[in-house]
Amino acid sequence: MQKVVKRKWLLVDHCSRIPEAGQYFVYELGQESIIVIRDLDLTINAFFNVCRHRGSLVCLEKQGKRKRLTCPYHGWTYGLDGSLKAARHMPEGFNPAEHGLFKCHTRVHHGFIFLNLSSEQATDFDDEFAVFEPHLSFHGFDSARIAHRQSYPTMANWKLVVENFLECYHCATAHPEFCSRHPREALIAMGAGPSSGPVAEVEKFAPVLKAWEQQAAKLGRPIGAVDDDEFSSHMKFLLQRPHRSDIKSETEDGQPVACLMGERSRFDFGRMHLSFSPFNHVIAGNDFAALIIFSPRETMKTDVEIIWLVDGKADSVDVERMIWMWDVTTRQDKIITENNQRGINSSRYQPGPLSEQELRVNTFSRWYANQLTRN
Amino acid sequence: MQKVVKRKWLLVDHCSRIPEAGQYFVYELGQESIIVIRDLDLTINAFFNVCRHRGSLVCLEKQGKRKRLTCPYHGWTYGLDGSLKAARHMPEGFNPAEHGLFKCHTRVHHGFIFLNLSSEQATDFDDEFAVFEPHLSFHGFDSARIAHRQSYPTMANWKLVVENFLECYHCATAHPEFCSRHPREALIAMGAGPSSGPVAEVEKFAPVLKAWEQQAAKLGRPIGAVDDDEFSSHMKFLLQRPHRSDIKSETEDGQPVACLMGERSRFDFGRMHLSFSPFNHVIAGNDFAALIIFSPRETMKTDVEIIWLVDGKADSVDVERMIWMWDVTTRQDKIITENNQRGINSSRYQPGPLSEQELRVNTFSRWYANQLTRN
Amino acid sequence: MQKVVKRKWLLVDHCSRIPEAGQYFVYELGQESIIVIRDLDLTINAFFNVCRHRGSLVCLEKQGKRKRLTCPYHGWTYGLDGSLKAARHMPEGFNPAEHGLFKCHTRVHHGFIFLNLSSEQATDFDDEFAVFEPHLSFHGFDSARIAHRQSYPTMANWKLVVENFLECYHCATAHPEFCSRHPREALIAMGAGPSSGPVAEVEKFAPVLKAWEQQAAKLGRPIGAVDDDEFSSHMKFLLQRPHRSDIKSETEDGQPVACLMGERSRFDFGRMHLSFSPFNHVIAGNDFAALIIFSPRETMKTDVEIIWLVDGKADSVDVERMIWMWDVTTRQDKIITENNQRGINSSRYQPGPLSEQELRVNTFSRWYANQLTRN
Repeated sequence: MQKVVKRKWLLVDHCSRIPEAGQYFVYELGQESIIVIRDLDLTINAFFNVCRHRGSLVCLEKQGKRKRLTCPYHGWTYGLDGSLKAARHMPEGFNPAEHGLFKCHTRVHHGFIFLNLSSEQATDFDDEFAVFEPHLSFHGFDSARIAHRQSYPTMANWKLVVENFLECYHCATAHPEFCSRHPREALIAMGAGPSSGPVAEVEKFAPVLKAWEQQAAKLGRPIGAVDDDEFSSHMKFLLQRPHRSDIKSETEDGQPVACLMGERSRFDFGRMHLSFSPFNHVIAGNDFAALIIFSPRETMKTDVEIIWLVDGKADSVDVERMIWMWDVTTRQDKIITENNQRGINSSRYQPGPLSEQELRVNTFSRWYANQLTRN
Repeated sequence: MQKVVKRKWLLVDHCSRIPEAGQYFVYELGQESIIVIRDLDLTINAFFNVCRHRGSLVCLEKQGKRKRLTCPYHGWTYGLDGSLKAARHMPEGFNPAEHGLFKCHTRVHHGFIFLNLSSEQATDFDDEFAVFEPHLSFHGFDSARIAHRQSYPTMANWKLVVENFLECYHCATAHPEFCSRHPREALIAMGAGPSSGPVAEVEKFAPVLKAWEQQAAKLGRPIGAVDDDEFSSHMKFLLQRPHRSDIKSETEDGQPVACLMGERSRFDFGRMHLSFSPFNHVIAGNDFAALIIFSPRETMKTDVEIIWLVDGKADSVDVERMIWMWDVTTRQDKIITENNQRGINSSRYQPGPLSEQELRVNTFSRWYANQLTRN
Repeated sequence: MQKVVKRKWLLVDHCSRIPEAGQYFVYELGQESIIVIRDLDLTINAFFNVCRHRGSLVCLEKQGKRKRLTCPYHGWTYGLDGSLKAARHMPEGFNPAEHGLFKCHTRVHHGFIFLNLSSEQATDFDDEFAVFEPHLSFHGFDSARIAHRQSYPTMANWKLVVENFLECYHCATAHPEFCSRHPREALIAMGAGPSSGPVAEVEKFAPVLKAWEQQAAKLGRPIGAVDDDEFSSHMKFLLQRPHRSDIKSETEDGQPVACLMGERSRFDFGRMHLSFSPFNHVIAGNDFAALIIFSPRETMKTDVEIIWLVDGKADSVDVERMIWMWDVTTRQDKIITENNQRGINSSRYQPGPLSEQELRVNTFSRWYANQLTRN
C-alpha cells in the first residue's frame, strides 16, 4: 500500500458525478477515506476525510451536496476548499489557517478525476501521461456523462485482480460473452496488449490490424499503442484494435446504445483499451466507455467498480443493453479471482509457466518487485 | 488490558440484580468471563468462569439461579462460595480444597458491585473512594432497584468511548435532546467537569452554581466536587450542577418517573455525575439514576451498557419516559465514536488541538500513559 | 499443522462415495484443498486442488463426476490421473509431463480412504496399521456403503475436539442418550480405552468383559486391544467391549437398522472403537458403523464429520433411527467443546488435575509435545 498503491495517480471517477459546487463523493482505499468535492469556482479538490480536531470522519454519507463540511462530532466546519471556517471555544493562539483538512493530490484531466495519496511530492502528471493526449481528446471524455455504475467487491488480493486484467488467455475459457464480440484471432494475437500474443499469431493478424488502422485513421482516430515496461512509473498501456466487423458496439445485438462519443462522425468498428496504471482501465467503444477501477481495501479484499460513460449529449440510455458485456464478464472475473486466491493459499502452490498470451503478467510481477525496491 | 483495565475497580452492576441466594450473572471483559453470585449468607462473590478441571465455562447462561454451580463438561460441582464440592473419580491425593473457582476481587458498596480482575493485591477500595461517602449515602443507591438495562455494543477502541464521555464539547453538535434539558451556559462552563469549560465561562456561571448549591444544601444535598488528575489511581470524578430550573427530571416532559431517591424530601433541580473510574459513570437526577458502564472486549469493540436505577420503593415506572434521554444520547454516541474510530484509522490522522471544553481528554491521555509506565 | 496434522495418515472417507471412474470429492484441511478421484482403472488417487499454471482451484464443486479436470481459469486440462493433457499457447520447450497436479499420498485400505499431506516420504502405512488387519476384515468395511453423512463445524481448536473424544469422564454429565446404551460400569472402567478407567473399576469389570470376549470370539470376532503410547507415530487405538446386553444396536429402541456387517452370522452385543490416529474414530456396532472425522481448519475452527456405514447389501435404512445416538451426542460435544475453548481463553485458565477416567488426555498432550520436537 505504502510503496506502490499510494504513490500512483489513481483514476477514481468522472467529474460528471459532481457537476455542481458543493457536490462531493467519498473514495475509499485501504483504510483511507477521501472526500472529492467541487469548490465554488467549480474546481475539484480532494481531502482526507479526517477531522483535524479529534480525527472523526467528516462526511459520513457516500455522496451528497453541502455548503460547508461540518464534522458530526464537535462541529468543526470546513469550507468547500477544505479550510477551517469555524471551531468553537478554541484556546488563545489557535490558528484556524493551520487546521484545514489535509489535501490529497488531485488532478482532473479530460473529465477523469485522479488522486495520488502520497504524502510527498507526486509524480509529475503531465510528463507521465502526455502520450495519451490525442487519444483522450478524440474520445471526448471531457464532455461525457456517467450513465451507470456498479460494484463488484472481490475477496482476493488486489494483485490477483490486476493480473486477471493483464491477459486474455482466460477469455476463451471463462468469457463466452466477451469472446462473442471479437474475432478469435484478435484475442489471441493482442487480446491483452500489443505484445500479448504469440509472435506467429501477432504476425498473422498484422495485416488485419493494419487495414483497420488505416480505415480508422481516415475517420480521424489517432493511431498508436503504449506498453510500459517493468521499469516504468505507472505501467501505462494503450491498445487499439478492431472488434467484430459486423457489430457497431459491444452489446449483445451489436447495435449502439448511444450517440457517437467525441470527435467521431461514423462508427469505425474498433475499441481502445487505455490504462493509466494497473489499477484502472478505460475501455472505449464508439458509443460508450467502461472505466474499470480496482481499489485495494484489505489483504484479501479488493473493490472493483465499473463506471459506464456515454456522450454528454446522449439521451436516455438502455442501461441493461449497455452493461451486458462488462457486467457478466466482471461477475465471471470475480469468481475466477476468488478461486485463484483460494488455490494460492495452499502450501503446495508454486507459480507455473506462463503462456505466450500472458507476457504482461510477467511484466507486472517484475514491475511490482521494482516498486518495492524504491525508497 | 493488563496494565490499566484489569487493575481498576470496575463498577459492573447493582446488587438488586441478584437479590436472592444462588442468583448470579456473568460479566464479560476482554476474553474474561466472571460469575457474580449471591452466597447463602447473601454476600456477593465473584469467580472466574473457568472450571478448575479442564477449563470449560461453568455458567453458560448470562444469568440465573443455582443451588450449586455444575460444570456442563465433566460435572465438577462448586458451591455458591466457589469451593469445589464434588468431582468424581479423582486420583488419590486430590485435594478439593485446592481446586475452588479462582476468586475475583469483589466489593459491594452502597449497592454497587465492583470487580477488580487483578491477580495481585487490588488498590485499597476504602482509601480510594472514601471521598464519595456522603454523596453515595444521600442518593440512597443502597436501597435502589434496577428499573431497566440496555446494551449498546460499539465497534471502537475503548479509549475513544471513554474520551467521548469526558467532554461536553460535542453536546451542542450531537445531542439536541440532552442539551434541551440544560441551560446552555451550564454545559459550556462545566458540561464535563468542574474544570471542563473555558475560564471566562466558568466564572460567568459561578454565581448561578453558587446559588443552586446553597439551595440544594439546604435540602440536605452534600456539596462538593472531585476531579482526579493524571497521576491519580482511578481518575475519579464528581460533578454536581443544576439542570434546567423548570424541569424536575431529565425526561422529555420534565416530570419525574418515580418517587424521590435517597434522603431527599423535595426536588432540588440538580444532578450528580460521579465516576469511580473512566470505565463507569453514575448520573443521578432526583428520581432516577443511570449507570453507564464501558467494558473493553476487543481492540475495536467496547460493550456499553446502561442500567437505570430508581428508589427501591418506587412503583411501576414508565420505562420509555425514563430511558428517553440516555437512550437517544447513547445511540448518538455509538455512531459518533464508531466514525471517530474510522477516521483515526487513516494514515493521515494526527491528534489536533483541544478546545477549552475538553481539558479532561488531555488529562485522560496523560493518565493512560502514566498507567502504562507503572510495573 | 506442519509437524503433526500434515504428517499423519488421515482417514477422510469411504470409497463407496466415488464408485465410478471420474467420480471425485474435495477434502479440505487447513488452507489445503484435495481432489480425491477414481481413475479409469478404478484406483483412487488424490491431488492438490491447485492448477499448476496460475494456482486456481481446479474443482470448485464439493463432488461430481468428470472425464477430465479442466481449470476454470485458463482451461488447463488434466486427466483423471492428474497428468496435464492440454494447455493452449505454451511457449516452446514447455513440457506437459512436468506439470501434472501435485499428488497427495493416498491409500485405500479395507474400503477406507486415507490421505497423507506430507511433501516428504510418508510413514509406511502397512507397518503402522498391520495390527488392525483381522478386525478390519471381520467388520467387512471393504464391502460397506455410506448410508448418511453429516457435518458439525466446531468453533474450537482441534486439540480440544480431540481431547473430548479421548475420555468418557464427561459421558455421565453430558451424554444421557449415549449412556443409556451402555452398562454404567463399562463406561467407568473402559469408556475411553482399555486403560481409561480407575484400576479398581477395571478389575471389577474384568470378568464381565472376559465373558463377553469369549462369547464374541465363539461367533468369530477377533479379540484384542490396541492403546498406543505417547512415543508412537499415530497414537492408534482399539477397544472392544459389550454394550447393554438387551439391545442389538445402539439405536433408541435397541433394534438394528440394517443387516449384520462383515463376517457376522449373529449379534454379539458388543462394539468396536478403532482409531487410526486421534483425528478419526471408527465406532462399529453389529449392523452399522460411524466414522467420526476431525479436520482442523483454522486455529479456532475444526470440521467434524460423521459418515455412517452399513453393509453393502443392506436395503433402505431408517436414517433417523441409525443416526440418533451419534447425532445427538455430537451436537452435545460441539457445545461442550466450544464452551471449553471460551473458558480456556481466560487469562486465569490453568490445566487442572485429570480424573482416573482421563488418562488418554494426558497421553495425547505428551504425544503432541513429542511430535513437535521431531524434525
